[in-house]
Amino acid sequence: MKSDSAGDGRHTKHVASERSFAEARVRVRYAETDQMGVVYHGNYFTWFEVGRVELCRQLGFEYKNMEAEDDSFIVVAEAYCRYKRPARFDDLLTVRTRVVESLRRTIRFGYELLNNATGEIIATGETVHVICDRQGRPKALPEKYRKYFPAMAADNDGHPRKAGAPHSA
Amino acid sequence: MKSDSAGDGRHTKHVASERSFAEARVRVRYAETDQMGVVYHGNYFTWFEVGRVELCRQLGFEYKNMEAEDDSFIVVAEAYCRYKRPARFDDLLTVRTRVVESLRRTIRFGYELLNNATGEIIATGETVHVICDRQGRPKALPEKYRKYFPAMAADNDGHPRKAGAPHSA
Amino acid sequence: MKSDSAGDGRHTKHVASERSFAEARVRVRYAETDQMGVVYHGNYFTWFEVGRVELCRQLGFEYKNMEAEDDSFIVVAEAYCRYKRPARFDDLLTVRTRVVESLRRTIRFGYELLNNATGEIIATGETVHVICDRQGRPKALPEKYRKYFPAMAADNDGHPRKAGAPHSA
Amino acid sequence: MKSDSAGDGRHTKHVASERSFAEARVRVRYAETDQMGVVYHGNYFTWFEVGRVELCRQLGFEYKNMEAEDDSFIVVAEAYCRYKRPARFDDLLTVRTRVVESLRRTIRFGYELLNNATGEIIATGETVHVICDRQGRPKALPEKYRKYFPAMAADNDGHPRKAGAPHSA
Repeated sequence: MKSDSAGDGRHTKHVASERSFAEARVRVRYAETDQMGVVYHGNYFTWFEVGRVELCRQLGFEYKNMEAEDDSFIVVAEAYCRYKRPARFDDLLTVRTRVVESLRRTIRFGYELLNNATGEIIATGETVHVICDRQGRPKALPEKYRKYFPAMAADNDGHPRKAGAPHSA
Repeated sequence: MKSDSAGDGRHTKHVASERSFAEARVRVRYAETDQMGVVYHGNYFTWFEVGRVELCRQLGFEYKNMEAEDDSFIVVAEAYCRYKRPARFDDLLTVRTRVVESLRRTIRFGYELLNNATGEIIATGETVHVICDRQGRPKALPEKYRKYFPAMAADNDGHPRKAGAPHSA
Repeated sequence: MKSDSAGDGRHTKHVASERSFAEARVRVRYAETDQMGVVYHGNYFTWFEVGRVELCRQLGFEYKNMEAEDDSFIVVAEAYCRYKRPARFDDLLTVRTRVVESLRRTIRFGYELLNNATGEIIATGETVHVICDRQGRPKALPEKYRKYFPAMAADNDGHPRKAGAPHSA
Repeated sequence: MKSDSAGDGRHTKHVASERSFAEARVRVRYAETDQMGVVYHGNYFTWFEVGRVELCRQLGFEYKNMEAEDDSFIVVAEAYCRYKRPARFDDLLTVRTRVVESLRRTIRFGYELLNNATGEIIATGETVHVICDRQGRPKALPEKYRKYFPAMAADNDGHPRKAGAPHSA
């Protein structure tokens, strides 16, 4: 996976032979920490959301328009995170987001969270989404968005699905 | 799994032939909703925490004392949630929490989230925790807590580990 | 202000010679703490919301119906909190909420937050709300809710407005 | 107050005849919205925190070091926000933060929140902080930080203290 920066250093799109991923930067907020002195685990899912919205923007559309103009919401059906190292107040992090799988009615996103200072991956994760209308009824992804999410079944090698399953440490 | 209520209707401990689970009640807050009109998915992990703390209390100890008196933190290593039906503002929910697996240094908790009005399970989840000291170094669970978490490997039948893996819908 | 409990010990309505207040119980969540080891200040406003919703219920209506059936949202125009003592993980707290002032288009709520174990007031606050329709346009409070919020200008004695203003310590 | 940009467009320090303010950029997250379709009011205080931390950085020190190296925490004693216009998902906002008053043991910060697309001020606020040690005991601001917070009583003209008080709309 190459990492040719294409942007302003803040949000960058990387193109690999098979897949694209987007990068979004976040700085850890005090509100996101807990009394353990590190970030509360539930807050990682908000960062994944930041990454997902940024990926949409870099693919060529704004997620908010998908909701407002096309009555299409990407509702979360599953969410998973594996925590490798803690994130601390004021750390600068990078969320790398990519489409792992896209089918007619579902999209699976994969995430890597990096600590900018060390370059280490501190967490990985996946979310699975179902396209729904405003009333929460599943629907097919509108035609105009299919070019951004071409039908793509997840491959079997090094696939995060297996790595992503909660299992004993 | 039986569900003989043993309490005041608010927090209840249920005893099954093999396993115990605790119940905690939460009412959905406006702050927990998002513009989709339902609860933001990341907030479910806070409810799982509420369930986990209540399970500790019903097992016979206070989690806060485990941190303060025994320098033992149950650090989250993995978190997973499967969303089945939306939760809405002001809904009364029940979090059912149980120990799925407990080993020398790790504990796996399982969760079911029910809508009290309908009785439906609206989400299920799992979290895996590693016992650590204040500096984040893994350690064995202190002797005094072992009675609450007897060594117990997860069984293979109906085990949430498989159901818990993010997979295509 | 009397505090005759009228309920189940969980949510209680108190009636004073001039004013009513409602009580809601909250238990501090780990997610609500920050690395200072106490609750993050912004989270108090969520507890005030819990108190406000409970006050509506005890006055005789559900706030959610006010939105869904009567297209009336009580949009926050101002929010203030004074922090006296810290709140800590697992503390049981009581939010006392009352209507401080209600005019044709605005309602002012006052809050006291108590630590149940010590009985101390650990924070006080106020929020001012404007009645709006779904599009955010100010409107008068619908007739059917006026009985719950009778026109009532704030008095000048012991009025929280003055105490509530941020001022030098 | 002038607003000569001195930076990279992301975080900017502005110098006025008497006072400095810092600017931090935030993009509204989906998690920050509520079912009203706009940002939940309590979340503004997290943005104010982002602004405060950025102001410290631009004044010349990192707030995290003040905690870690000098056992000095700026504990929130009061928090106030006035909401003028809604903030919406994906909006780019600027938080302008400045020191309104600094005394031996307390610091008052003032905030303006702007919508970058319209240039409008959508909220203003203030927070008052007391310098405390790790145990929560008030202490004087350490000598080394006094240059950043020179003794400065708030002036009386156009002072946010009055504007900041919650009052009827």
